[in-house]
Amino acid sequence: MQHGAAIHHGGDLATARRLHPDAPSPWIDLSTGINPVPYPVGEISADAWTRLPGRDAVDRLIAAARIAYGAGPETAVVAAPGTQALIQRLPDLLPGPRVRVLGFTYQEHESVWRLAGRRVERVAEASALAGADVAVIVNPNNPDGRLIAPAALAEIAHGIAAAGGTLVVDEAFMDVIRPAPGAFPAGLLPLRPPGTLVLRSFGKAYGLAGLRLGFALGDGALVARLGAALGPWAVPGPALEIGARALADRAWLEVATARLEADAARLDRLLVGAGFEIIGGTPLFRLARHADAAGLHHRLAIAGILTRAFAEPTWLRFGLPGTAPAWSRLAAALGG
Amino acid sequence: MQHGAAIHHGGDLATARRLHPDAPSPWIDLSTGINPVPYPVGEISADAWTRLPGRDAVDRLIAAARIAYGAGPETAVVAAPGTQALIQRLPDLLPGPRVRVLGFTYQEHESVWRLAGRRVERVAEASALAGADVAVIVNPNNPDGRLIAPAALAEIAHGIAAAGGTLVVDEAFMDVIRPAPGAFPAGLLPLRPPGTLVLRSFGKAYGLAGLRLGFALGDGALVARLGAALGPWAVPGPALEIGARALADRAWLEVATARLEADAARLDRLLVGAGFEIIGGTPLFRLARHADAAGLHHRLAIAGILTRAFAEPTWLRFGLPGTAPAWSRLAAALGG
Repeated sequence: MQHGAAIHHGGDLATARRLHPDAPSPWIDLSTGINPVPYPVGEISADAWTRLPGRDAVDRLIAAARIAYGAGPETAVVAAPGTQALIQRLPDLLPGPRVRVLGFTYQEHESVWRLAGRRVERVAEASALAGADVAVIVNPNNPDGRLIAPAALAEIAHGIAAAGGTLVVDEAFMDVIRPAPGAFPAGLLPLRPPGTLVLRSFGKAYGLAGLRLGFALGDGALVARLGAALGPWAVPGPALEIGARALADRAWLEVATARLEADAARLDRLLVGAGFEIIGGTPLFRLARHADAAGLHHRLAIAGILTRAFAEPTWLRFGLPGTAPAWSRLAAALGG
Repeated sequence: MQHGAAIHHGGDLATARRLHPDAPSPWIDLSTGINPVPYPVGEISADAWTRLPGRDAVDRLIAAARIAYGAGPETAVVAAPGTQALIQRLPDLLPGPRVRVLGFTYQEHESVWRLAGRRVERVAEASALAGADVAVIVNPNNPDGRLIAPAALAEIAHGIAAAGGTLVVDEAFMDVIRPAPGAFPAGLLPLRPPGTLVLRSFGKAYGLAGLRLGFALGDGALVARLGAALGPWAVPGPALEIGARALADRAWLEVATARLEADAARLDRLLVGAGFEIIGGTPLFRLARHADAAGLHHRLAIAGILTRAFAEPTWLRFGLPGTAPAWSRLAAALGG
């Protein structure tokens, strides 16, 4: 009931365990793009658990998010219990028959519009988004990591806004993208794109996907309607506190990103050594091609390692191992 | 943005602090109906924070809720990040022009339908709900505690269902209602009412309102559509764990309810001694009448005690003090 029935997501360890009851335990879950070294949860105040989340706590989180994402005072911000909760609300708020999604990407974007009875066109090039009432770009893209530079994306945003459409940019993995040393914050928001809604996810880069925290940033009227649709007390108190603390901790993110970049390069070497071709990805996950990707997915599962398969049978997506034993088990399973 | 702009809710300590900067600190918040002695949060697994909430964790929570609320296997259940998140979704899912809400009650029920452009009729008697497309009853009612017995409510449910309507019963405060010793679980669900959606809130009775956890139980098709509207990973991992543990701990709830009943009686005596007439309530809050309720609201605020005022100027709602010093300060402020 809590899960889109038709969509295969990463992270479904329970099903993997049932399918492979004899796999070694614990399982290594490489099926998602979640940082395996989480931000420390730390102390949580008693009030965060016991009281209805107050305006002040929400304001503190929003202020931290604004700085972390490079959003100026003209940009409206709303927090939600996960980016998915925002995606679920978009079809109600954005009218118009021409909904276009760029490329193969995170499936929920197409799914929520179809569930709402809207036709969705998947387009291969960003230029084909022009004229859409609603255009969706995941940037960097999941699973292939395709990255549209902020300046080019701002140009697309201007074109869509000029025609009265809305551009939705899902920057779920943008936290760990470093266009250049010191170029934080990355992403589209510092360019103040018009008519654009940017989605940011907390849980992936900070390794706290269970916390459920995401943001929508952009046009004031649209963000206000999203906030009204979510209603009061949408974000739990612990998420408000942890999120505010983590988003203000830029040093942690810099160190984490450097480590993730190094680990992603290590993973690439391991995969290439095992006969994969690297298609792309982000520092949080790698998409790789292999003629026998399906067979390798199965072989890894037997070894207690969950990866993410796709309808495209030569693709496999790998998250990063988080411990030395996990790296060793992956290397052994790929080399065996 | 996170708060319904037009509705005055309890729990807004930040505003109270700004209005009364010289009030003694800490404030005593009696403006909500939240158990002041919370269920112990206890250990939370690392996975609950770091992983996307899995099917198994959701299933464990739902199983505990089913038993706690007396819902049989024919009743569908969906969990949400707070009952409010469910209330926000109802107008999209329940069609029909005749929306009726019983009595003065929790204002969000009227508000969400109006925000969705629907007309809402407030009716004084449950019999006037007959013929509604959507009928809403808060039971026990907030703020006056009016309680419709399950058998009578089931009859109302049958009538509304027979005419093709849907009855929404918000049992936010039902956990602490004991119709008779040993009569747990209380509420409508054990009677399997047709065409009815029952809402249950976790945070009030268990004193963990910041956790954000609520349930919708009832008709399979409607609950499935609510689940699809919420989307995947709707409930954070920590809420799944804590909720499952607490809802299975019937001994804690029995002891807590007995204490709340005793404290509610003590609060009644205190209020009557201060010239209030008790209108009603539940073991979690008391609604009291006083010719100068507005003046007393102000006097209590100056003493650092927040209560809940209403448009009706003679009403004041009191939650329960949770500590001996809080009781003393309330007694002193009322007697002063």
